[in-house]
Amino acid sequence: MPDDHGHHLAAETLARRFEDVRARTLALIQPLSPEDCCVQSMPDASPAKWHLAHTTWFFETFVLERFEPGFRAYAPGWRVLFNSYYQTVGAQHARCERGLLTRPSLGEVIAYRRAIDERISTLLMRAAEPELLELIELGIEHEQQHQELIVTDIKHLLSRHPLAPAYDISSEPTRAEAPALRWLSFDGGLVDIGANAHGFSFDNERPRHRAYVAPFEIASRLTTNAEYAAFVDDGGYRDTRWWLAEGWDWIQREHIIQPLYWRGDRLDRREFTLRGEHAIDPSQPVSHLSYYEADAFARWSEARLPTEFEWEHAFACEEAAAIGAMQRIGACWQWTSSSYAPYPGFRPARGAVGEYNGKFMVNQYVLRGGSSATPPGHARLTYRNFFPTHARWQLSGVRLARDLSRA
Amino acid sequence: MPDDHGHHLAAETLARRFEDVRARTLALIQPLSPEDCCVQSMPDASPAKWHLAHTTWFFETFVLERFEPGFRAYAPGWRVLFNSYYQTVGAQHARCERGLLTRPSLGEVIAYRRAIDERISTLLMRAAEPELLELIELGIEHEQQHQELIVTDIKHLLSRHPLAPAYDISSEPTRAEAPALRWLSFDGGLVDIGANAHGFSFDNERPRHRAYVAPFEIASRLTTNAEYAAFVDDGGYRDTRWWLAEGWDWIQREHIIQPLYWRGDRLDRREFTLRGEHAIDPSQPVSHLSYYEADAFARWSEARLPTEFEWEHAFACEEAAAIGAMQRIGACWQWTSSSYAPYPGFRPARGAVGEYNGKFMVNQYVLRGGSSATPPGHARLTYRNFFPTHARWQLSGVRLARDLSRA
Amino acid sequence: MPDDHGHHLAAETLARRFEDVRARTLALIQPLSPEDCCVQSMPDASPAKWHLAHTTWFFETFVLERFEPGFRAYAPGWRVLFNSYYQTVGAQHARCERGLLTRPSLGEVIAYRRAIDERISTLLMRAAEPELLELIELGIEHEQQHQELIVTDIKHLLSRHPLAPAYDISSEPTRAEAPALRWLSFDGGLVDIGANAHGFSFDNERPRHRAYVAPFEIASRLTTNAEYAAFVDDGGYRDTRWWLAEGWDWIQREHIIQPLYWRGDRLDRREFTLRGEHAIDPSQPVSHLSYYEADAFARWSEARLPTEFEWEHAFACEEAAAIGAMQRIGACWQWTSSSYAPYPGFRPARGAVGEYNGKFMVNQYVLRGGSSATPPGHARLTYRNFFPTHARWQLSGVRLARDLSRA
Amino acid sequence: MPDDHGHHLAAETLARRFEDVRARTLALIQPLSPEDCCVQSMPDASPAKWHLAHTTWFFETFVLERFEPGFRAYAPGWRVLFNSYYQTVGAQHARCERGLLTRPSLGEVIAYRRAIDERISTLLMRAAEPELLELIELGIEHEQQHQELIVTDIKHLLSRHPLAPAYDISSEPTRAEAPALRWLSFDGGLVDIGANAHGFSFDNERPRHRAYVAPFEIASRLTTNAEYAAFVDDGGYRDTRWWLAEGWDWIQREHIIQPLYWRGDRLDRREFTLRGEHAIDPSQPVSHLSYYEADAFARWSEARLPTEFEWEHAFACEEAAAIGAMQRIGACWQWTSSSYAPYPGFRPARGAVGEYNGKFMVNQYVLRGGSSATPPGHARLTYRNFFPTHARWQLSGVRLARDLSRA
Repeated sequence: MPDDHGHHLAAETLARRFEDVRARTLALIQPLSPEDCCVQSMPDASPAKWHLAHTTWFFETFVLERFEPGFRAYAPGWRVLFNSYYQTVGAQHARCERGLLTRPSLGEVIAYRRAIDERISTLLMRAAEPELLELIELGIEHEQQHQELIVTDIKHLLSRHPLAPAYDISSEPTRAEAPALRWLSFDGGLVDIGANAHGFSFDNERPRHRAYVAPFEIASRLTTNAEYAAFVDDGGYRDTRWWLAEGWDWIQREHIIQPLYWRGDRLDRREFTLRGEHAIDPSQPVSHLSYYEADAFARWSEARLPTEFEWEHAFACEEAAAIGAMQRIGACWQWTSSSYAPYPGFRPARGAVGEYNGKFMVNQYVLRGGSSATPPGHARLTYRNFFPTHARWQLSGVRLARDLSRA
Repeated sequence: MPDDHGHHLAAETLARRFEDVRARTLALIQPLSPEDCCVQSMPDASPAKWHLAHTTWFFETFVLERFEPGFRAYAPGWRVLFNSYYQTVGAQHARCERGLLTRPSLGEVIAYRRAIDERISTLLMRAAEPELLELIELGIEHEQQHQELIVTDIKHLLSRHPLAPAYDISSEPTRAEAPALRWLSFDGGLVDIGANAHGFSFDNERPRHRAYVAPFEIASRLTTNAEYAAFVDDGGYRDTRWWLAEGWDWIQREHIIQPLYWRGDRLDRREFTLRGEHAIDPSQPVSHLSYYEADAFARWSEARLPTEFEWEHAFACEEAAAIGAMQRIGACWQWTSSSYAPYPGFRPARGAVGEYNGKFMVNQYVLRGGSSATPPGHARLTYRNFFPTHARWQLSGVRLARDLSRA
Repeated sequence: MPDDHGHHLAAETLARRFEDVRARTLALIQPLSPEDCCVQSMPDASPAKWHLAHTTWFFETFVLERFEPGFRAYAPGWRVLFNSYYQTVGAQHARCERGLLTRPSLGEVIAYRRAIDERISTLLMRAAEPELLELIELGIEHEQQHQELIVTDIKHLLSRHPLAPAYDISSEPTRAEAPALRWLSFDGGLVDIGANAHGFSFDNERPRHRAYVAPFEIASRLTTNAEYAAFVDDGGYRDTRWWLAEGWDWIQREHIIQPLYWRGDRLDRREFTLRGEHAIDPSQPVSHLSYYEADAFARWSEARLPTEFEWEHAFACEEAAAIGAMQRIGACWQWTSSSYAPYPGFRPARGAVGEYNGKFMVNQYVLRGGSSATPPGHARLTYRNFFPTHARWQLSGVRLARDLSRA
Repeated sequence: MPDDHGHHLAAETLARRFEDVRARTLALIQPLSPEDCCVQSMPDASPAKWHLAHTTWFFETFVLERFEPGFRAYAPGWRVLFNSYYQTVGAQHARCERGLLTRPSLGEVIAYRRAIDERISTLLMRAAEPELLELIELGIEHEQQHQELIVTDIKHLLSRHPLAPAYDISSEPTRAEAPALRWLSFDGGLVDIGANAHGFSFDNERPRHRAYVAPFEIASRLTTNAEYAAFVDDGGYRDTRWWLAEGWDWIQREHIIQPLYWRGDRLDRREFTLRGEHAIDPSQPVSHLSYYEADAFARWSEARLPTEFEWEHAFACEEAAAIGAMQRIGACWQWTSSSYAPYPGFRPARGAVGEYNGKFMVNQYVLRGGSSATPPGHARLTYRNFFPTHARWQLSGVRLARDLSRA
């Protein structure tokens, strides 16, 4: 256990990290107007302004309210507005009505952020209990998760506009050939899965535990737009053989014929991006797929999705040392065939933050890796992202796997 | 028929009226932020920014495009965004998705208004054909209709906010006792209904025609909050005897127990208003009623709603000279029992503006009078407002009527 | 007022009519199996077995319970099951769940009918108060209304079966050329509308009252399948100009491209009928139209629907003596442009039967005439049928009208 | 490989089993009327008549069509009506419209069964290829699955009737005290899961494979009504702490406050059963729970649901020899926390029967054991039943488990 001096060093480091992450959130909304930040384009997405306020509410509620001497709420009426889903903390404004909150204005929410930032910084200069530091670290990681959501939610909002406006026209798209796909083999066996006690991890990554994995192969890179287009052009969305029954019903009912942001057809295939609408880059990983589409594509490819244990084991192995080349992180989240479930021995945190993850462990599937919208340094080998099978507004793609017969 | 000089005088008068009305629209949004002006709180309501843009689009499309030499669209991509329902003009952005239009920003829409205003003014200095003047007059009246909608739509938006924010806290509510209700008798007979050729009227008010009206009585003023509260407190919303079957189903399904903006109960009855939430003023006319509620209240009162012919005849008669006292205009629109139908011999205008009224003449009921949100000078004796039976976000109230037996 | 002997003669006549009508209901279900009689094909339609039971419940509840000495309910538990919408009488089984009532069986319901028939007949031998006779007469007319519904509801059920089974293959379709359409002119003026005190009429046909009708013309016969097919083939369902806005939304949302029971297209146009699926007979009146379709067809035809006053006046006039030729009754109900509203001075009957008609007088439109499914002798000149604008499972067609300018 | 004689012996045995199982299906509908057998009470349930026909269609399509010389369809039009979900075989009548099939009648479907039975028997006397025998065996097991569905679907239908009619009043409920609950401990480790090559199993039970199981404890019997009632009475349905977020939303939205067929409250708790409505037997296993309810109850009990591997391992162990006492089979299916997924190396059967299981492996959870409605001899140790998390019309209950810390 570190001594007091150690704690204060840790507190200083954390304070700098806190400032950096908070500043990055504000930087994300620079290209946006107050209107862009206020509107909710679907129940699953939240307004950027709400993300700005909710992440601040998280620090105010879980850190200041508990540790700040003489705590007073910044604006008591906002407590309900910016509580996402913490039933233990009190009532919540309905998720699908977050877009109705024209008040407070964007300017008022930014002022709220500044005030709470200052109070957290002050607190960190004076106190350094482990639990305080842990909660601030949780708040920082939480804010990073919302940074990714700000990007994906804004992308969805702009995509619904008939004129396909751009979020950011400054960045240049990378153009590079995709390397050839190779199959990497793993023997499996009894493997260790999950986060250990060192460094930050979410409760859903713990405890580290054993699992048995049969021999398997996994693709050396993500599926590209060109490969997925071949599936589309082969009539993949019209052939029941490739689809889970529920996925087939879903594409019929929703009239789905290609990934979420694809436009046009094989003669003129375009994609809505944060830079507006552009011709599809065939070498880039395909993204914005639902689980159903990822699974159907895998079946058409005579392969399957990896389990989350296979995925984690593959990237933990020395064979996968050339990790950048394998796109562990940085392009799209990678659907696994593993339903989101507690690890054996899982214990949610005590108190309201115990609602962070555990209560969502049903009818969702795990995605691994990270995406171009994930803040640098946020994702880990053991990180578990999760979404329902029809969700496709996240940057979700495919890495194929297949059984390795021991013939 | 007036000579050229007369036309130019008329054009000058119209130009001044155009400027006044356009300026009044902007004045209405002064208390609002860009966020307030962008959000759509339900499919029936439109964002204030959309109203600002649509009324401008109306002048650009129906006036400038036809009469301005060398016309060029201000922003061709906006044509679809701000077309409400004119199929003849082209595609329309879906009504229920008007709230997704974070672009153009409020500032850009105000600039659009200024540019079109200037071009209309320039045009009016140079040209004065009767058809041009008529279309500008139609556009002005159209803009006034949207002024009322801006008020009712903003009221609805703010009412959905958990903190009940105010639109305008500067105005003082009037406090006055309601006069005693008297019954005014009319013999009826063959009466003339509808607008004649002098002065502006909408096509749905024409042609002037005959109708037979049986003897009837009509209330000298609107139903007050106190009178309606007595109905509520008598269990009116729990007693099937008062309700149309469809209305009963509606209040069950929607859990409706009082007028739209009433809060609390008989011990603490409040109302959401443009000035925030306040105790109900018992003397004011009850408003924000659906047709179903107006009709049920009338039945409970051993009376009925007037037909639109009775209403118009009553206010056209000399007996109703003290018209202010009778609240013909100025408090709430008054539900009539008349379904919205074409008058005998009705002809919609030629061209796209023919879609203005005629195609809505089904499953709606006529409201007469005007409301506190109606722009001064807009409503007429023959004016026909109309809404579906469940609509209650308009300022809609009740004036009772009953049969007069000739005993 | 008739003496006792007169009453008993009336009672005898009524008893015979009662028996005839009750027997005709049973005859209607002869071609049907217990399964056919039990299933509900949509919320608007009821199972034939339910109609058999409900009409019986009507006599039991409104006649026996009040007039039979020592009344005991046949099966107290059924009271809720077969109450349609009489709130005053007590709870009702939900309309959309009538198809769940597999018990009592068809046989048990027929036994229920026999038992109640016997008790009514016994009662009629002993008592003859005017109110009793009136209620039995109301029950008879009510049963006739349900006879028509049995036919239309069964037709709908069978139409939903992929194999298009026939209700009755014994009857031969009539094949005859349609006479040429002529326009009959009427001067209008102040006319008398509604039923007088002689003979049976429903409360919604009363009181007889005055209305003013402008000069008009009306078609000498109903619109035929051939005429309507010309509208379809002219792209009528794809051209917004002909449609009420609400109707246009409806055909888009429901993917409606032709009348309810039409199948195939112009190259092979067939119709589902009670005799199964057959080639369309071009000379027969078009039927199973919604109000929206009837109205759109009329606009495409440069005509309009008649008001119910025009319709009644035309058939009351001597000019329309050749009434059979004009198809007043016997083919399809004829949509009018009149919304279903109480006549001036309308009073619903006292007690629960007051719920018979009045509470439905909103958002429906009046149909006049009668159809091939209307029991012989049931419809009158003043008879008012009514349905919502989207309803098309009734035998509903069009008779055109137009303004007559007094040039 | 057995010789010809062996095949024919196997064919004879199978023929007898075929007859027995087919006869048992008919016996199940003895208490039912044609109406009972025709109606569909919700989209998830099918009419009993449809089950009778579909299981017959299965033999006709997958056995006769392939193996019978000179095969002719019994009624070609029925092919679409009774195909459940085999896309490879052709079109299917929509699942939610099975209740519209009043034709063919119950009598005609029984005749269809007899005709196909005879043809299958004749075929079995003449041919004995392994693949034929396998498909008939699959058809028999398939029919047994539908036997269970007939019971649960009829129970649901009758439960929706306001008078709570009984399916069968002849059987006497068993009344016995529940034994005390004990916790049985297992060390876990690498265990073998799934069916081996001997005897029949569905494809979803194969291949037999290894899994790692951590030490755990499992309850010696199912949760009883009394135990579950304690959860209800403790406010379990009003306390968010026990619920998955999705489950909490579900009970709010659907107004769920107790198991599907429970009625009344703690003062008068009754249950709808196949014998009608009765007082709850506190000693019987609680049934008709959704996954959400089973999971919430487990959390309230400071326990959890077992994984399907834990469940199978526990019952495979010698410690669990007293298997009857442990209620492996015979009361209710037992929810596990395992999402329904393919076993490593899973291969669906070739051809249309490959659609039997694999395409449903998403968003469902595995139930193990068997129920009082499962045909005798049908369920196995390795048998995997599966339903979505909100399903509760099956006989689904809870067996608790918990982690075993190796302290």
